[in-house]
Amino acid sequence: MTPQLAESIGKLGVGNGFAGLFSQHTTAVLLVNEFQPALLDDIGDFLKRVVRDDLEYKHNSPKWSDCERGNATSHIRSLLFNNSVLLPVADGKLVLGRFQSVILAELDGPRERTLKLQLMGV
Amino acid sequence: MTPQLAESIGKLGVGNGFAGLFSQHTTAVLLVNEFQPALLDDIGDFLKRVVRDDLEYKHNSPKWSDCERGNATSHIRSLLFNNSVLLPVADGKLVLGRFQSVILAELDGPRERTLKLQLMGV
Amino acid sequence: MTPQLAESIGKLGVGNGFAGLFSQHTTAVLLVNEFQPALLDDIGDFLKRVVRDDLEYKHNSPKWSDCERGNATSHIRSLLFNNSVLLPVADGKLVLGRFQSVILAELDGPRERTLKLQLMGV
Repeated sequence: MTPQLAESIGKLGVGNGFAGLFSQHTTAVLLVNEFQPALLDDIGDFLKRVVRDDLEYKHNSPKWSDCERGNATSHIRSLLFNNSVLLPVADGKLVLGRFQSVILAELDGPRERTLKLQLMGV
Repeated sequence: MTPQLAESIGKLGVGNGFAGLFSQHTTAVLLVNEFQPALLDDIGDFLKRVVRDDLEYKHNSPKWSDCERGNATSHIRSLLFNNSVLLPVADGKLVLGRFQSVILAELDGPRERTLKLQLMGV
Repeated sequence: MTPQLAESIGKLGVGNGFAGLFSQHTTAVLLVNEFQPALLDDIGDFLKRVVRDDLEYKHNSPKWSDCERGNATSHIRSLLFNNSVLLPVADGKLVLGRFQSVILAELDGPRERTLKLQLMGV
């Protein structure tokens, strides 16, 4: 999401402050890390190892839940991330380290997702 | 915590800005996810699988620690969450997705817990 | 980082608002927890158990990645933390619970690391 975020900050004209990006979903999350396909594959493999698909989950059972999506593992994997990313804005620009990117991680769909951006500053 | 948070924001009269809710504890954490009892049970089971109670922890040993509570697993489980939640406020209202709730997760007690709310905006 | 952060806030003269501390790195992270050596050892052991060094990672393979550092596990461990910490400032002081410290966790180096501090308030 880095280019979209940088563009929005430029348009909105905040010089110094905070930019917050917020996922409006419980199974689509935001993180700051290196955006490299090989690493993203490794992260996906890790998520499958640490939150196993082959266990029983109450959230997936009609006995305990009216959720028809059977997506307990998506919710639990989302715990390891965050629903939001907060970043500083300085001199009108997003402040990020050389290898840092703002990444939206889809843990369930894919489907259309909504993010909210809140900027505050002077 | 969503209703309490929404009520406080209404009373404090911030139109647009950020609301931060902060746990003052190292073993009681905040998260944004779906508040469904079956899912919360699944999350509890996951936390017991990934941070096992049947291992030895230095924090629980009088040799290495003066902690008398033996709560290393509570601390380690708290790593998977966050001590705070930041949310946008727009038009005087908390901005949350349809299935998102602000949840306080007690990982140790239960005991009385203190949260701080900081609002900033115009 | 608590003393350095408290000192900076005192110097910068913000009375009430937010303080954000931001790691500029993908393998050095920030967290709020109890700063006790025994617990930090337990956390290190947990990270080695949950993100295993003895597996193959694409990020470490010249076939998939130009990364020469072989640090996939450092990146994946960083997911369990956050690149930033946000804290309230009230009456000119950092607001933290009795056992809470702001901790910089080096997951890769050690090497020189850069943090950015952004304060906003009145």
